[in-house]
Amino acid sequence: VAQRLEKFKTTIFTQMSILGNKHGAINLGQGFPNFDGPEFVKEAAIQAIKDGKNQYARAFGAPELNSAVASRFHQDTGLVVDPEREVTVTCGCTEAIAAAMLGLINPGDEVILFAPFYDSYEATLSMAGAKVKCITLRPPGFDIPLDELKAAVTSETRAILMNTPHNPTGKIFTREELEAIASLCIENDVMVFSDEVYDKLDFEMDHICIASLPGMYERTVTMNSLGKTFSLTGWKIGWAVAPPHLTWGIRQAHSYLTFATSTPMQAAAVAALEAPESYYTELKRDYSEKKEILVKGLKEVGFEVFPSSGTYFVVVDHTPFGFGDDVAFCEYLIKEVGVVAIPTSVFYLNPEDGKNLVRFAFCKDEETLRSAIERMKLKL
Amino acid sequence: VAQRLEKFKTTIFTQMSILGNKHGAINLGQGFPNFDGPEFVKEAAIQAIKDGKNQYARAFGAPELNSAVASRFHQDTGLVVDPEREVTVTCGCTEAIAAAMLGLINPGDEVILFAPFYDSYEATLSMAGAKVKCITLRPPGFDIPLDELKAAVTSETRAILMNTPHNPTGKIFTREELEAIASLCIENDVMVFSDEVYDKLDFEMDHICIASLPGMYERTVTMNSLGKTFSLTGWKIGWAVAPPHLTWGIRQAHSYLTFATSTPMQAAAVAALEAPESYYTELKRDYSEKKEILVKGLKEVGFEVFPSSGTYFVVVDHTPFGFGDDVAFCEYLIKEVGVVAIPTSVFYLNPEDGKNLVRFAFCKDEETLRSAIERMKLKL
Ligand SMILES: CSCCC(=O)C(=O)O
Ligand SMILES: CSCCC(=O)C(=O)O
Repeated sequence: VAQRLEKFKTTIFTQMSILGNKHGAINLGQGFPNFDGPEFVKEAAIQAIKDGKNQYARAFGAPELNSAVASRFHQDTGLVVDPEREVTVTCGCTEAIAAAMLGLINPGDEVILFAPFYDSYEATLSMAGAKVKCITLRPPGFDIPLDELKAAVTSETRAILMNTPHNPTGKIFTREELEAIASLCIENDVMVFSDEVYDKLDFEMDHICIASLPGMYERTVTMNSLGKTFSLTGWKIGWAVAPPHLTWGIRQAHSYLTFATSTPMQAAAVAALEAPESYYTELKRDYSEKKEILVKGLKEVGFEVFPSSGTYFVVVDHTPFGFGDDVAFCEYLIKEVGVVAIPTSVFYLNPEDGKNLVRFAFCKDEETLRSAIERMKLKL
Repeated sequence: VAQRLEKFKTTIFTQMSILGNKHGAINLGQGFPNFDGPEFVKEAAIQAIKDGKNQYARAFGAPELNSAVASRFHQDTGLVVDPEREVTVTCGCTEAIAAAMLGLINPGDEVILFAPFYDSYEATLSMAGAKVKCITLRPPGFDIPLDELKAAVTSETRAILMNTPHNPTGKIFTREELEAIASLCIENDVMVFSDEVYDKLDFEMDHICIASLPGMYERTVTMNSLGKTFSLTGWKIGWAVAPPHLTWGIRQAHSYLTFATSTPMQAAAVAALEAPESYYTELKRDYSEKKEILVKGLKEVGFEVFPSSGTYFVVVDHTPFGFGDDVAFCEYLIKEVGVVAIPTSVFYLNPEDGKNLVRFAFCKDEETLRSAIERMKLKL
């Protein structure tokens, strides 16, 4: 294996899913629904396949999808972007992240990350040769320590890589926090890469897209995807919205990482993005109910549950159960209790920081959530 | 844009397709069929979507697809590989290439390339920080200059990146050439990355997989895809077959570049790989006819046509028509004649080497091929 990837292990999602399957455990680990996406989107994919939309799409996205992404971005942020010059369609948001790092970051560039973080951030920054500085968000609120952030951002800083609503904690960055980030970025001429795949799963407060703050669009890459919002995580349609000078770098990397993404799924993504507002309202209502079931249950089991405002994840402290660390706890949970959760220590530069915390997903039908709670009540 | 991608332009395929569309030109440029893939494969994709196979696949491939790839590889080469440890499913062969480079090549590693080459080779080697040495294949036969190759491979060499059947020339590497490469690799402990996406389009002689030569499997990454063989270039299902120690690096890079590939398309790929031998026989018969039409036509137009043994491409010398170089010729061809071809100079480290050559694709229905020939006869 090349040095740039030497320190990384098999992604925790793969590890936990494999172990979970082996033990027949209920999977509240990786963030994929155990129910299906909406019929009208599936129908659109089927129609595209039947209609022969089966050859290479344009590398940076089928024109209709670029347009649909631009209109949704406009609806969400008020910003007008050019679908032909400011939108890039990728193989899921994961590829958008990789393309942004490899397309825009040079070896030695300093990038600031918030821990805990989705593991691909650190791996793709390593591929790009970036120097990573890490700011840790701490329970219970996982608020951004603004003084630490201020001290960290200097004229040496090239970019901040952030994620709101935040996986794994469920924290939504507040307007005050976003404004602080924005003013630091403008002052120090810093780019922002913002992963906003859970933007439509904002329960306790409204999600704000950092690109919509004054002076920010021109320095921000906003990344999103179909998977979380439309319960179709296996379709792997993502995108990046960014001003032309940043889009250029993303497109160059994307051209050579995957060239283009599934053509019929792009056609279906257009249909999805045309969903009426009521789709999102219902989605949120459904997820609120699931969340309540899981949070209530986890408290009854005896965990300290930290408040989650968005995403379909919730983080708990497992120390009441007396295990050494999160990995040991999760192994016990899979093997002896029959439930998969995700240990969080891999989401920190220093694994020690996450050793008390594990993440549960509530993107599952109610029965699954209730059975998982039952198992934990019985055996923990 | 990051330095690693600074020297690269918009991929030639995108450039030519955009210009071609603008001028309503007949597209014999990028290698995608203008007819549809087989019904039974499309049906399998539709069924998978209906059946709710719409969430994340296992990162390194849906188990059934890994198995199907392993059996096809066994049928093709006689080699037995472990689908769980030696197969990685990727977002097209393009991602397999990127994952192999980023997962296995370190900055400063020397890699040997044959020009002309598919443009992503050079770009992904640049992302990996490789030192590239290039061996040029020259018309009319595009044979490997074995003496040059011998002189180039030293103990400093880490890998050879090759492609047979060869895009753009249509050359199929002979057994003698493959044996020469193999013995140099074994002698100098060199890896081979072999892009074999056109393996089923071997017309004038049989394709040989270099991994099947004695001593080679353990040092070879064989890459392939669904797109070319099943006329579904837009589905973006590719794979890499390699021994476990090389598969590890590929999977690590893949996990963080895209994580996984479209789940329903992976299910359909399983159906495709179970096609009877007759599917391949018919495919080859159909393409032989198309090839004959194009080659005969190009000769009548007045090109010097170089023999192509495989792939769905053929390379010609355009100098009889008196244009300065391949790019100028292709621009004239699109704007004044109404036909898209691909200039080859971008497929060389030194663009001068390709300035007389352009590539035509024959993965088009007969009428399209005949109309393109008509236009060229009329206006060239
Ligand atoms: C490929 S895993 C993507 C993120 C996610 O679903 C998770 O954090 O569980
Ligand atoms: C993404 S283009 C892949 C290769 C090909 O089709 C071509 O060479 O035309």
